[in-house]
Amino acid sequence: MTTNEIPYKIYLTEDEMPKSWYNMRADMKNKPAPLIHPGTHQPLKLEELTPIFCEELCKQELNDSDAHIAIPEPIRQFYRMYRPSPLVRAYCLEERLNTPAHIYYKFEGNNTSGSHKLNSAIAQAYYAKQQGLKGVTTETGAGQWGTALSMASAYFGLDCQVYMVKCSYEQKPFRREVMRTYGATVTPSPSNTTAIGRKILEQFPDTTGSLGCAISEAVEKATSQEGYRYVLGSVLNMVLLHQSVIGQETMAACDKYGIVPDIIIGCAGGGSNLGGLIAPFMGRKLRGEADYRIIAIEPASCPSFTRGKFLYDFCDTGHVCPLAKMYTLGSEFIPSANHAGGLRYHGMSSTLSQLYADGLIEARAVEQSAVFKAATEFARCEGILPAPESSHAIKAAIDEAIKCKESGEAKNIIFGLTGTGYFDMTAYKAYNDGTMSDYIPTDADLERGFSHIPQFPGNTIN
Amino acid sequence: MTTNEIPYKIYLTEDEMPKSWYNMRADMKNKPAPLIHPGTHQPLKLEELTPIFCEELCKQELNDSDAHIAIPEPIRQFYRMYRPSPLVRAYCLEERLNTPAHIYYKFEGNNTSGSHKLNSAIAQAYYAKQQGLKGVTTETGAGQWGTALSMASAYFGLDCQVYMVKCSYEQKPFRREVMRTYGATVTPSPSNTTAIGRKILEQFPDTTGSLGCAISEAVEKATSQEGYRYVLGSVLNMVLLHQSVIGQETMAACDKYGIVPDIIIGCAGGGSNLGGLIAPFMGRKLRGEADYRIIAIEPASCPSFTRGKFLYDFCDTGHVCPLAKMYTLGSEFIPSANHAGGLRYHGMSSTLSQLYADGLIEARAVEQSAVFKAATEFARCEGILPAPESSHAIKAAIDEAIKCKESGEAKNIIFGLTGTGYFDMTAYKAYNDGTMSDYIPTDADLERGFSHIPQFPGNTIN
Repeated sequence: MTTNEIPYKIYLTEDEMPKSWYNMRADMKNKPAPLIHPGTHQPLKLEELTPIFCEELCKQELNDSDAHIAIPEPIRQFYRMYRPSPLVRAYCLEERLNTPAHIYYKFEGNNTSGSHKLNSAIAQAYYAKQQGLKGVTTETGAGQWGTALSMASAYFGLDCQVYMVKCSYEQKPFRREVMRTYGATVTPSPSNTTAIGRKILEQFPDTTGSLGCAISEAVEKATSQEGYRYVLGSVLNMVLLHQSVIGQETMAACDKYGIVPDIIIGCAGGGSNLGGLIAPFMGRKLRGEADYRIIAIEPASCPSFTRGKFLYDFCDTGHVCPLAKMYTLGSEFIPSANHAGGLRYHGMSSTLSQLYADGLIEARAVEQSAVFKAATEFARCEGILPAPESSHAIKAAIDEAIKCKESGEAKNIIFGLTGTGYFDMTAYKAYNDGTMSDYIPTDADLERGFSHIPQFPGNTIN
Repeated sequence: MTTNEIPYKIYLTEDEMPKSWYNMRADMKNKPAPLIHPGTHQPLKLEELTPIFCEELCKQELNDSDAHIAIPEPIRQFYRMYRPSPLVRAYCLEERLNTPAHIYYKFEGNNTSGSHKLNSAIAQAYYAKQQGLKGVTTETGAGQWGTALSMASAYFGLDCQVYMVKCSYEQKPFRREVMRTYGATVTPSPSNTTAIGRKILEQFPDTTGSLGCAISEAVEKATSQEGYRYVLGSVLNMVLLHQSVIGQETMAACDKYGIVPDIIIGCAGGGSNLGGLIAPFMGRKLRGEADYRIIAIEPASCPSFTRGKFLYDFCDTGHVCPLAKMYTLGSEFIPSANHAGGLRYHGMSSTLSQLYADGLIEARAVEQSAVFKAATEFARCEGILPAPESSHAIKAAIDEAIKCKESGEAKNIIFGLTGTGYFDMTAYKAYNDGTMSDYIPTDADLERGFSHIPQFPGNTIN
């Protein structure tokens, strides 16, 4: 099939949507390390997880053997409202860059949550409803996950309580309002509504908050109310599982048009988008059926992959959650307030961490002013105003496309365009006004973060 | 074909996109009245229009005989970035309402301008570029048109100067920032940058602005700079022509799936969305090939169709533009500041006005709190947060679907979902907080507006 036959947007039909999620862990030789109990350091059992998370989701979290898990029909029905999402050929960007590379992006922003987060939110809300719960609690950073969960909860008639990282709460009043429109209650974190929030406020009264802290508050709130469970929008295995719809649709679209990817690029905060996008491709790579370069892009201000430690660490600031083995900056690491929006999490999905440790994916850190430059260039020729998070991937895709121009190679570059930046205009304004600055933590900053990683036999910083 | 076979979203292929615009006027027996000169009251000639608008667009404006006008390939290429737009079956809304009606909406919000406005913006920018111009000026109310023109101008490398109605400029700082990201300059109107702006500010220092006033400023700015022309996002015949892509895609999708519409609903401010959506359907109706109920929905606070006069009137507050025969509230009518966002124009497309006068379309006015109630209900089950403008159509579609429930009829209702409400959260906040109020102008308010309509033989208020 020749390039000319590839449309601007490849849409699968609703019938071609995946009927099951793909569980990458089933094909991994080195399985991701299990969650362990912070006291005993023993792998967590199902019954230790179910007081926090919905039962079916706990089973998914612990399941590293079934490669395919059926997507319940009510979830597929909801998916049909905004999926399949298009795989877009970036013809205009290619022309602007004058590159022989073929650039594609899987665009997950065409839904009101503005991102891929809805893929897991609707799954988690569904299982909560199935279990007969009254409601769910969660945290949100940039606000996309909170919006997604608000939408999913409204759809299934669940109460939804969102702890929003304070700096985002203040930077993004309209995000908050979208969640309220969907019936959610939104509280800036840290807050006085939880014990852990009060404790953090006492210690750090001026903190702009962190995902780790908001997680602690949401977990405390869930476990202290009858009929509630906590849900999480990234990091966990179950979330990567749900997000595999992104990669499966991408692969189906590629296979349909004979596109063989050379490089697959995704931004990485907790890892849900990247893990979802690469899942089936990584499956082929793990099974030796194909090979691709897979690149994780993270902010230089929160560089868990490129400068973190691969150790067991707390998932939250309040240390109420299990320990996960992952690339981490330490649970008390909080990126500088001048870092705009998402990708603020101190750790990284255990699954992706293991793949990175095994050399199956690469990682690269980029600075935010370069990211917004790429975002603006992309917006002006591709017509989509991208989310700052997604723009990390854009920056890397442009860099790779320019290398192709230099080498004359017509590589196929695929990246995940996870969402739109409509609620990130405060950050765009800083960029437009020339007041955006870059921040790179010093080694001393990182050491301070690492000093909070728990030390026990087999888990020591060299 | 049975209902079960209709997917949630009907996407045409890029090949099925229309290759020409459909010019409804060609099939009208009673042609819309021509634009006339404000001094001589004679129909305007091409050479009188070209100092204001691009030449090719002037020809389109005056052309009421050619039914089909080819869409230049560069415009179709841009269209492919976000078109064809989906015709969505509102399965979830139907279920929520428990109605036998089949509800469909043509969703134009999946692009960064957030609305259908981009369809005409890219066409007008293209012709400006073809004519060798340096840039364009325009006005924007809710901000969607300004955003669309900024995107289109960035694509073709044109300078773009936007006058934004002051109340929107203040309510929507992020809209302004999106336009800046696309390289446009944005000025709140009325402003000190034009003679007409200064005059209005002197007379009404506290005015929150109006579209009519912003138009005057943009026209003055265009005609006082070398290499600039003015472009307009609604009202004009050429705009309705470009927007006919909406209706043509809708009709193609309906025909493909055997859907025969009973009722077609669109919101109406200046008429571009409604005129575009109904164009080919009206064509069939005018040619006697089919019949549909076509309903224009307008805000009760700016009721040009339902309470206006069908007379020649100024298109702008500053009276620098030609006179158009249309349903009008008078060029100095400014809706109350508590009216949220768009659909603020005092007049209405001449083409739609003639069709309304001839009984070929119906009109209905709705109050804004009922509109936001419908918007919230729609958002919670259909997953899209609609623009306030579009929500006028949602309100009417829900009303019609409820009538179907009462009568037991399975009517096919199609409405235009022109855009998303992501930049309208100030208005949603007012609704969520319970502080939104309704405003209906009194007869005395309207009389004040009518008193500014020019009176001359054949153009008198009875």
